[in-house]
Amino acid sequence: MTGFGPEHLPYGVFRRAGEAPRVGVRFGEGVLDLAALALDGLLDEDPALFAQPSLNAFMAQGPATWSRVREALRALTAGPDAEPAAVPLDEAELLLPIAVGDYADFYSSIYHAENVGRMFRPDGEALMPNWRHLPVGYQGRAGTVVVSGTPIRRPRGQRRDDQDAPPVFGPSTRLDIELELGFVVGTPSALGEPIPIDRALDHLFGVVLLNDWSARDIQAWEYRPLGPFLAKSFATSIAAWVTPMEAVLARRVPAPAPDPEPLPYLREEPWALDLDLEVELSGTTISRTSARHLYWSAAQQLAHLTVNGASVRTGDLFGSGTISGPERDQCGSLLELAWNGSDPIVLADGTQRGFLEDGDEVVLRGAGGDALTLGEVRGRIEPAA
Amino acid sequence: MTGFGPEHLPYGVFRRAGEAPRVGVRFGEGVLDLAALALDGLLDEDPALFAQPSLNAFMAQGPATWSRVREALRALTAGPDAEPAAVPLDEAELLLPIAVGDYADFYSSIYHAENVGRMFRPDGEALMPNWRHLPVGYQGRAGTVVVSGTPIRRPRGQRRDDQDAPPVFGPSTRLDIELELGFVVGTPSALGEPIPIDRALDHLFGVVLLNDWSARDIQAWEYRPLGPFLAKSFATSIAAWVTPMEAVLARRVPAPAPDPEPLPYLREEPWALDLDLEVELSGTTISRTSARHLYWSAAQQLAHLTVNGASVRTGDLFGSGTISGPERDQCGSLLELAWNGSDPIVLADGTQRGFLEDGDEVVLRGAGGDALTLGEVRGRIEPAA
Repeated sequence: MTGFGPEHLPYGVFRRAGEAPRVGVRFGEGVLDLAALALDGLLDEDPALFAQPSLNAFMAQGPATWSRVREALRALTAGPDAEPAAVPLDEAELLLPIAVGDYADFYSSIYHAENVGRMFRPDGEALMPNWRHLPVGYQGRAGTVVVSGTPIRRPRGQRRDDQDAPPVFGPSTRLDIELELGFVVGTPSALGEPIPIDRALDHLFGVVLLNDWSARDIQAWEYRPLGPFLAKSFATSIAAWVTPMEAVLARRVPAPAPDPEPLPYLREEPWALDLDLEVELSGTTISRTSARHLYWSAAQQLAHLTVNGASVRTGDLFGSGTISGPERDQCGSLLELAWNGSDPIVLADGTQRGFLEDGDEVVLRGAGGDALTLGEVRGRIEPAA
Repeated sequence: MTGFGPEHLPYGVFRRAGEAPRVGVRFGEGVLDLAALALDGLLDEDPALFAQPSLNAFMAQGPATWSRVREALRALTAGPDAEPAAVPLDEAELLLPIAVGDYADFYSSIYHAENVGRMFRPDGEALMPNWRHLPVGYQGRAGTVVVSGTPIRRPRGQRRDDQDAPPVFGPSTRLDIELELGFVVGTPSALGEPIPIDRALDHLFGVVLLNDWSARDIQAWEYRPLGPFLAKSFATSIAAWVTPMEAVLARRVPAPAPDPEPLPYLREEPWALDLDLEVELSGTTISRTSARHLYWSAAQQLAHLTVNGASVRTGDLFGSGTISGPERDQCGSLLELAWNGSDPIVLADGTQRGFLEDGDEVVLRGAGGDALTLGEVRGRIEPAA
């Protein structure tokens, strides 16, 4: 079943030629049409819940509905003889699975944060003073979240290569990727009411791989004092398949204790996700890493995101931040893999890369053992307009 | 007509007790029910366009429809004998007028940016090197944009008052306001296609007063290196009434030339909006200023926001940034008015304020002469949870 068997059953939105979009579940090399299953009485839900252009109506039903549907789907797909009717993958156009409410992005891999600190502040501490006390993050642009396969046009913008000259305008010359996990909120919260950390996972519907495309030259010039803006807002790619939290949490493992112990609203039994991740660039695997390298968990991120009273909505998305491990070839960005262009990586065809070139194709992949293959995130760089 | 006559006609969403929300237009002390007017044949549009919980369906129709409706409404309301049927204001509950897509916030008043620079970087240049080259901005949280009148609960969060001690957690002790204009996008743009500056205003539907509530202590601790996050995300208040661009642009005036001349994608004939603005704090007017003090225009902001290929959607909102003038009592934040708490302002009752106290009520007001009164933005501070 190549990681898409009855233990996984990720949700997406698909369209057959000439038909309206509807919610589906990937099973093997096919897509189960949930609206059709509900019409046939194989799911106990209103078919209208699945005759939708996004998962949001389904996600808004809450955990009891998610469990009921998942159990019914497992019953349909489990067993050696199970052969539920499915739409072949090659007949299904995969659409953006969620209508994104707010998109926030964190910075929760300590190896990534240390690498960036060493690179850009060589004379200071690698980590900012706040880093070990809170999951640093920022709001990103929700309207430019796109589904895997969407071409990525190289952004144009201001950069200042020469610090003694005025800025120049043109296509980014330092276009990068960021390998991340994205967490999708299913159950909303009320304004003014923080989500306690021990309830945070109850609000999450699922997980996607996420590529936070980044223009490093634009970012370096624009980011003081209000953070990254146009360096990130041109596109963020997510997988077409949202892996349910239940499947993801089967890969939950203990993690090292944080140092120092965080403030009470961020305290929990340390855990991480044992998911293997990799980055392919134009046919060459350039990084193999793991979600275990994240210092802050999704529960800590959501507790922090709402501790000031900010609410979350069904369809909100938050990214883990670039996932890097302790070794150079375990990093989740070209910035680190090629050390800011100073140590280019070599592809299988012998060409070198500091940053992305036009025509490059990036694929993010992930797996939790044989039973769980995360939906891939694919994107090819098109020349600037 | 107290600024709500036939020259203004701002749009909002209202609800009468027991009825569904619908789109209305403020006229004098009443609200014109556009769904009812369309049903009666007094507007040439489908009534369903106005039987809506937000302006988005109407805004998505584009400028030709906006003009046609505005002309029809002016015909109904102009002339000394015009007395169109209206819902009395005190029978109309005013709701958030737009379903906000993405919310971005700029930093476009040079006086404000200089004040902040002088306060926090006393030994450096008041302005960051990028400030005069691009409209600095960041993405804010769309899901916590609330309508005028919504109570604002004091946020809790991490702060580090003592730089030699660990951070502490608790209610913000430096809660502030930011007086801004907010611009509402009506006409969307496509991903990968920047909006040229000379077309930018065509995409805008209207303007609201906006209060970007800010927790300065949370911000100071969290903002490096990714910018403000929880310091802002707990709430942003906007007016219930969206003033159409046509009414706002009647107050367009020439502005000083920027120095240096910006890059070509930001070049235009310099202009500003001649709108008088003021801040009232618990009954005392503490600031009188003007939108003329903005260095970057809404057209420059939108051209910048999309120059990297980022798209905009109907309902997107962007803020001007705090509007401050050259004098102390022309500033749009308490941070500046009370100079970071060092020079408290004195209210009419003799009490002093460095930052906001629980129970304080803030009202933002604006006007463009006698004909145009912007919808106010009101908010009272509730104690932390």
